Amino acid sequence: MKEDIVAVILAGGIGSRFWPFSCDKVVFPFFGSPFASYSISRLLPKQITRAVVITNSINNTILSKLTLSVPVTTVIQRSPLGMADAILSASSELSDSRLFIMNADDLTKPGYFNHVIEKGMKRCVFGVIPAVKTKVHLPFGYLETDGRNIQGIIEKPEDGNEPSPYAVLLGHFIADSNILLDELLRTRSSIDDIYEKALSTLMQRYTFLIHEYEGDYATLKYPWHVLDVTRMLLSTLKSYKGTNVEVGANTLLEGKIWIGDNVRIMENSKIIGPSYIGSGTIIGNNSLIRASYIGDQCVTGFNSDITRSYIGNCCWLHNNYIGDSVLEEQVSMGSGAVLANLRFDDQIIYSTVKGTRMSTGRNKLGSFLGKGVRIGVNSSIMPGIKIGKGSFIGSGMVIDKDIPEESYCEIKQSYTVSRNRLKPGDMKREEFRKAI
Amino acid sequence: MKEDIVAVILAGGIGSRFWPFSCDKVVFPFFGSPFASYSISRLLPKQITRAVVITNSINNTILSKLTLSVPVTTVIQRSPLGMADAILSASSELSDSRLFIMNADDLTKPGYFNHVIEKGMKRCVFGVIPAVKTKVHLPFGYLETDGRNIQGIIEKPEDGNEPSPYAVLLGHFIADSNILLDELLRTRSSIDDIYEKALSTLMQRYTFLIHEYEGDYATLKYPWHVLDVTRMLLSTLKSYKGTNVEVGANTLLEGKIWIGDNVRIMENSKIIGPSYIGSGTIIGNNSLIRASYIGDQCVTGFNSDITRSYIGNCCWLHNNYIGDSVLEEQVSMGSGAVLANLRFDDQIIYSTVKGTRMSTGRNKLGSFLGKGVRIGVNSSIMPGIKIGKGSFIGSGMVIDKDIPEESYCEIKQSYTVSRNRLKPGDMKREEFRKAI
Amino acid sequence: MKEDIVAVILAGGIGSRFWPFSCDKVVFPFFGSPFASYSISRLLPKQITRAVVITNSINNTILSKLTLSVPVTTVIQRSPLGMADAILSASSELSDSRLFIMNADDLTKPGYFNHVIEKGMKRCVFGVIPAVKTKVHLPFGYLETDGRNIQGIIEKPEDGNEPSPYAVLLGHFIADSNILLDELLRTRSSIDDIYEKALSTLMQRYTFLIHEYEGDYATLKYPWHVLDVTRMLLSTLKSYKGTNVEVGANTLLEGKIWIGDNVRIMENSKIIGPSYIGSGTIIGNNSLIRASYIGDQCVTGFNSDITRSYIGNCCWLHNNYIGDSVLEEQVSMGSGAVLANLRFDDQIIYSTVKGTRMSTGRNKLGSFLGKGVRIGVNSSIMPGIKIGKGSFIGSGMVIDKDIPEESYCEIKQSYTVSRNRLKPGDMKREEFRKAI
Repeated sequence: MKEDIVAVILAGGIGSRFWPFSCDKVVFPFFGSPFASYSISRLLPKQITRAVVITNSINNTILSKLTLSVPVTTVIQRSPLGMADAILSASSELSDSRLFIMNADDLTKPGYFNHVIEKGMKRCVFGVIPAVKTKVHLPFGYLETDGRNIQGIIEKPEDGNEPSPYAVLLGHFIADSNILLDELLRTRSSIDDIYEKALSTLMQRYTFLIHEYEGDYATLKYPWHVLDVTRMLLSTLKSYKGTNVEVGANTLLEGKIWIGDNVRIMENSKIIGPSYIGSGTIIGNNSLIRASYIGDQCVTGFNSDITRSYIGNCCWLHNNYIGDSVLEEQVSMGSGAVLANLRFDDQIIYSTVKGTRMSTGRNKLGSFLGKGVRIGVNSSIMPGIKIGKGSFIGSGMVIDKDIPEESYCEIKQSYTVSRNRLKPGDMKREEFRKAI
Repeated sequence: MKEDIVAVILAGGIGSRFWPFSCDKVVFPFFGSPFASYSISRLLPKQITRAVVITNSINNTILSKLTLSVPVTTVIQRSPLGMADAILSASSELSDSRLFIMNADDLTKPGYFNHVIEKGMKRCVFGVIPAVKTKVHLPFGYLETDGRNIQGIIEKPEDGNEPSPYAVLLGHFIADSNILLDELLRTRSSIDDIYEKALSTLMQRYTFLIHEYEGDYATLKYPWHVLDVTRMLLSTLKSYKGTNVEVGANTLLEGKIWIGDNVRIMENSKIIGPSYIGSGTIIGNNSLIRASYIGDQCVTGFNSDITRSYIGNCCWLHNNYIGDSVLEEQVSMGSGAVLANLRFDDQIIYSTVKGTRMSTGRNKLGSFLGKGVRIGVNSSIMPGIKIGKGSFIGSGMVIDKDIPEESYCEIKQSYTVSRNRLKPGDMKREEFRKAI
Repeated sequence: MKEDIVAVILAGGIGSRFWPFSCDKVVFPFFGSPFASYSISRLLPKQITRAVVITNSINNTILSKLTLSVPVTTVIQRSPLGMADAILSASSELSDSRLFIMNADDLTKPGYFNHVIEKGMKRCVFGVIPAVKTKVHLPFGYLETDGRNIQGIIEKPEDGNEPSPYAVLLGHFIADSNILLDELLRTRSSIDDIYEKALSTLMQRYTFLIHEYEGDYATLKYPWHVLDVTRMLLSTLKSYKGTNVEVGANTLLEGKIWIGDNVRIMENSKIIGPSYIGSGTIIGNNSLIRASYIGDQCVTGFNSDITRSYIGNCCWLHNNYIGDSVLEEQVSMGSGAVLANLRFDDQIIYSTVKGTRMSTGRNKLGSFLGKGVRIGVNSSIMPGIKIGKGSFIGSGMVIDKDIPEESYCEIKQSYTVSRNRLKPGDMKREEFRKAI
């Protein structure tokens, strides 16, 4: 066995559940860097000596630009056949090593993975599995455990059937790659749980410890997860003010706010941190920005209210309400357009993903606008709706269905035009004015 | 004849003209107290020695909690058969007394009724009737009078047929209950004017004096009368600031404003008195509140404009215009929803009550939203419209008819979706940005 | 030849291309004066000794009130048969003179015309023609020229066929009226270019110099030209503050702003110059006014955003976006109504004039509302749209066609009303409130 501790970084997957965004989730940009620079570069444990990135040809282009502190081998997974297949496709790179299996989709606290590996090495166990103790049901694998040693993993049990309160996170330490690879080869399943089944078998033979995780975490799978990642990354933000920043009179900056170069914040606006304002962005008069990420070169226009949202680069807003929403980039909204973020009954908002209506787990959720989407004045987009890239939504519309890419939507409004027989009384207005 | 001066308080009536509000008018809450606490408790003349409240079983629950300074007997009127029937139903409580007949729906200046009784006692007359001298026609009874003594009452004469400029208010002093009760028993009419006919007959035999009323008064009968009462009660408001009140920067408070405990007023807002802000309410950034009543635990959201309105407890507003409107309680309005308050021709606004279109007498009038109504984003409610309790109005709608209780209204909007052939010129936006 | 230099002022034309405005373009008011007071009174060259105004009976009423420093003769042109006909109709007033031919529709820099006449007199040439050197195609006549002497005029060549970069402006100096009048009488054409053809003929016989114009100029022909004139006149504005002006707290005045008497500017507003605020106008709270003209007795209401626009007298706005638009006078807009000023593809906006779609040459252009137009709450008017005087547009409408005068437009919205089965969870709102 070599001294190597190899990071196995799973960065494949086709991400069709991430629609309407036009890039894959691992390269979705936050604060000017692809998501992977947070989920991989920043989280890579210090004990790692070598990394194997298993990815697909699309993501590889951008991932290859990531700077890691260790030598990296990239393996292209031909088809997205699941986690076991991904690891096996890189088996020639992984023999005779200790492994640390990470997922490029997952975000945990920086430094946390160091402790997982440390525990595995110190205790000389076969495996260490991070898990989060949870009261609410999660669509995760769950550990069969007494809270210390692990007997097995149940992949995605139904609500109420969880074997313990411990839901599995990635960042798995495995002391012997050969044994894992052998077991993965030997395991069969009709569904996508070969990795979990193989681990469960090994858990019968070897010692696996649980490492309980406390704090925020996020998995970037569905479009609304961008909001989770945004919130997590904003929470670690430091206050900063770039060069050539103009801040108008009566403007209020509250909490931690990162302000890029050449930003202009107009008068009577308020920004509540943690918030990020990218370079060259103009925050218009009377705007209210709360706990949001706003990319570079945006214009938020007069009187916009942006709350807990992700606004990508080069977006144009004007007199809009944008709550709990994601605008990919180059999105434009006309005056009075609203992204509604609340159901009438305040209940959980559903969204349709690949034809299936699914719970987003959120009571407050707006909409998801792909690259280049433009929304006309006074239009209303209902909660949980997704609009594909390059689509234009006309004025005065109420959109309550997802809209495919490159669509042109136009209202067909019926109205009557007749002879106007009403005459305003001029004196009334004079009277009204005097009462002001 | 006993020395008693008995207040006869008429607090029955089924109040169906008060729809869409879910409680009867005498218990409609103002400043945390039912209307009756103003129209009864606060107005009760000091000379009264005993009170008889004639009410129905519904109102009785709340009226029984009113604290009066005199002993109270409650009489439940079986059916709402008019004023004469109400008084007669309590006749066993009223014999051998002087009477002061008040209406729980009417609001006059505190202390005024003392003078009515005083005049009756001093001058040793049979009756004193308050009346308001008016130039505009009112749907009231009118006195046949020379301005001092009264010869009779004409119930609701048509516009132009008034026998004098004196319209009758309640708060009638009658020196001998037995004579009145006898006359009421003897009088017959096919319409609801037995009381007025009986008084007219007595006016032929006994001296009745007029007591002219000067100042504001209100009768709470139709939903828009809530606005009159609100205005009257606000006009007597004193400035007050509760404990734990937060007032943000650049906020302007002008005139007399009552601010409850734990109120938060966000930055860049303006409140113009007389206005009332109930406990726990949050006035969002950039809001403008003018001459309005806002109950407890409300959130007025960003950029709302609330003018001459009544906003009950636990309402949520966000980027709305609310003018001359009444929101009962737990009403919620999405961003961009507007309660229009002006006709195109600035003329008097009509409203439909129990199937009949009637003048509200107001050029500026918004809408009336029952308990729990929710309005979607960018919807528009036309002037004078009423929406029953528990109804939800979808987004982007134009509502120009009253909506029954517990309705779910959803727009059916036609639109076309075609292939988008337009491509924005990226450089244009760059050019636009530079011009900002 | 007399010493006279006679200004020939063309002020006829029926201006149907100026629809939807209810007055002719030469009397369209700016800053309280008709356009002609700028295009004629202010531009009249100092060398002029006498003026002949050729107009129609409608314009004459107002033009007759213009004060000029020289004697004026008015000639009524019977029918609008073009420029040559106009000059010929005044021929009895023009014989034996030098002429300076101006157009009441055109606006150039004050003082410029002095130089044109000066050049003609000093150099003793037959004619001097002002021209602007332009890279973009204009719908003007173009000079055949080497940049100094002129050989002819090509009336409105197609884009790419211009004989030189010099587009003809008016303000023509002609040294001998008799020769011009003769030539006009002699020239025949099937289209409206007799004047240009006559000049071209004379250019073969006599010396005509070019006088290059530098700076802003405007021609008032189509409704959007009001914006050009507004911009030009605003650019020469001086800061001024009338008597009895109220300016609220937190208000920002930036650049040159002319503020009339009795103006009230409410709190938290911003006005960016050059802007003009007419007497008695109320600028509501939280408004943003940029580079705009606002007439007398207007109310701009709460939260309006008015940019590069002309707002005539007695307009009422409330929570509107008005960009690059012209509101003639007595126009009223409900809360949330928007005049959109940008196409989805940011391209040039077209408008229909007398049945023909034509380019306005502008990427940003709003709409044109005639006198007395009223727009309902939450309505949206598309770029380039014109609405005739006295028309009312209902609430929630999307108007993408021109609307004739005195129309009453009402939306026919389909919606369903069913039993509401949703019940909000009260506790959710409590949770939401705490999170604010």
